[in-house]
Amino acid sequence: MTGHVPLAPEFALIARHFRPLAGQGGLDLTDDAALLTPPPGHELVLAADAMVAGVHFLPDDPPQTIGRKLLRVNLSDLAAMGADPLAYLMTVALPSGTPDAWVAGFVAGLALDQVEFGLQVLGGDTVSTPGPLTLSLTILGTVLPGRALRRGGARPGDELWVSGTIGDGYLGLRAARGEIADPDGYLAARYRLPQPRLALGRALRGVATACMDVSDGLVQDLGHLCRASGCGAVVEGALVPLSPPARGAEPSLLFTGGDDYELLFAAPPGAVPPGLTNPGPDGMAITRIGHFTQASLDVVVLDRTGQPMALSHRGWSHF
Amino acid sequence: MTGHVPLAPEFALIARHFRPLAGQGGLDLTDDAALLTPPPGHELVLAADAMVAGVHFLPDDPPQTIGRKLLRVNLSDLAAMGADPLAYLMTVALPSGTPDAWVAGFVAGLALDQVEFGLQVLGGDTVSTPGPLTLSLTILGTVLPGRALRRGGARPGDELWVSGTIGDGYLGLRAARGEIADPDGYLAARYRLPQPRLALGRALRGVATACMDVSDGLVQDLGHLCRASGCGAVVEGALVPLSPPARGAEPSLLFTGGDDYELLFAAPPGAVPPGLTNPGPDGMAITRIGHFTQASLDVVVLDRTGQPMALSHRGWSHF
Repeated sequence: MTGHVPLAPEFALIARHFRPLAGQGGLDLTDDAALLTPPPGHELVLAADAMVAGVHFLPDDPPQTIGRKLLRVNLSDLAAMGADPLAYLMTVALPSGTPDAWVAGFVAGLALDQVEFGLQVLGGDTVSTPGPLTLSLTILGTVLPGRALRRGGARPGDELWVSGTIGDGYLGLRAARGEIADPDGYLAARYRLPQPRLALGRALRGVATACMDVSDGLVQDLGHLCRASGCGAVVEGALVPLSPPARGAEPSLLFTGGDDYELLFAAPPGAVPPGLTNPGPDGMAITRIGHFTQASLDVVVLDRTGQPMALSHRGWSHF
Repeated sequence: MTGHVPLAPEFALIARHFRPLAGQGGLDLTDDAALLTPPPGHELVLAADAMVAGVHFLPDDPPQTIGRKLLRVNLSDLAAMGADPLAYLMTVALPSGTPDAWVAGFVAGLALDQVEFGLQVLGGDTVSTPGPLTLSLTILGTVLPGRALRRGGARPGDELWVSGTIGDGYLGLRAARGEIADPDGYLAARYRLPQPRLALGRALRGVATACMDVSDGLVQDLGHLCRASGCGAVVEGALVPLSPPARGAEPSLLFTGGDDYELLFAAPPGAVPPGLTNPGPDGMAITRIGHFTQASLDVVVLDRTGQPMALSHRGWSHF
């Protein structure tokens, strides 16, 4: 008889904290896998991202924001494709001895964002690690066939646009580390809880010729978009939108810092409807910051005097 | 001008090793997300699992087997649901300084299994970690609506069956650690490269009333199936199939050890067609090892004398 042996802690923890998050497709997280009937007539859009404590977030970040940040980073990938969120799966490698209250806070944060973004969790796995907290999340979204935004459609002459403000993620990390002042917490919040631009992504279907999200630095990510499109690009640094706390910072650091999760997109001149700007569908402005060129010109960032800026690196790599 | 700055190492590594793995839906891993047209008229089956070096595999396991083990663990979840494999996404948290040759071997192993199981990779993420190698994989499969095998359908009186042999995963871990003899490498191979019982899972659609895979120990996993079904179960220990190297080992260790990845299922008496046994569709036998009872009797394992075995724990928890 084994009836008096308690459940292994993994299962008790999953039952207590994660099961209430599961949607009907997750089968209450009690089967080997989840079942999902894909919406008829749609393509699925899928992405996966991982985050490691001390690399992608600070180990002492509030547990309520850590899972949400990973979820929002993935939602930002859906936004960049013009997709609608559907569901997610998450794996969690927890350091031994993680307090129960920490797990409760982590799950409470996820529950908030499931409601905010209309998502269900379909499954996942919880394991222990002798290393840092490591999270991985796969997101599923939907889009009508052929309507997804891609990176490869920009053409020379297209305008280059960006949403929101650039550099807050970089400054937010410094603020969260206590390295710079952040009296109202705006910058740290930008680092800890990015805002996926899902409404903007939807509005750009049929408008943008190429789109991606800025996760690893404006200049580096623009380089990816240019390579995929076979273009170059000129960024007019003076046009890049900055939040008030960013206006005194060194532009080359803002333009190469990570964690902004804004949308960067191409559109033919005059194609962006006035209704998308000031403020756009996600409550923030979109700003034209340059234009696309022939591929041979690569990516050039001009300073306020019209001279190419010296950049020591393109962007931030978590690798 | 940033054209002379080399790509960040993360992107160079992905481009060199992972991009050749990507299927068409993965958009060559150059977009923010992958696109997938789900097979019409099917349900999707989704599962996610994580593995940590030193917890789920040995840090010095061959790189060729490590990714394949995680892939096969996930395929085993599809087998347990009676599903057909479709695609996967994987995230890799690599310790800094991991040799390039290691990554090449890791990817080569995945490439082998993509062919063997007819899978494409849709996307993923590669990040660095100060901790141990940590992998996470989400698998997608398909099944016709209503045909998935579930855990909750076993009824008192149903027969209890298992595929292959039990306890090799536990012994294989000990062999891989050099703690026990393994002259032909059979046991270590069972630990490092589980065989997902996909053909058996397909054959059990419409036959099994409940099914799951044995990943955390026969007794513990049977307990999960019994709770989901509202049943108890009696296992006749003498009937549990053992491989030749396992026959001298202590049964209570074999029945509670992890990493077997065999299928455990329920079927009404006489429902299993003779064609499924000796050897079954995956080249191994399936064996009746007991029967289901009323829930009040919980899970009982009888030894060769018909007495309940004393088990110190139900199974293995990676938590």
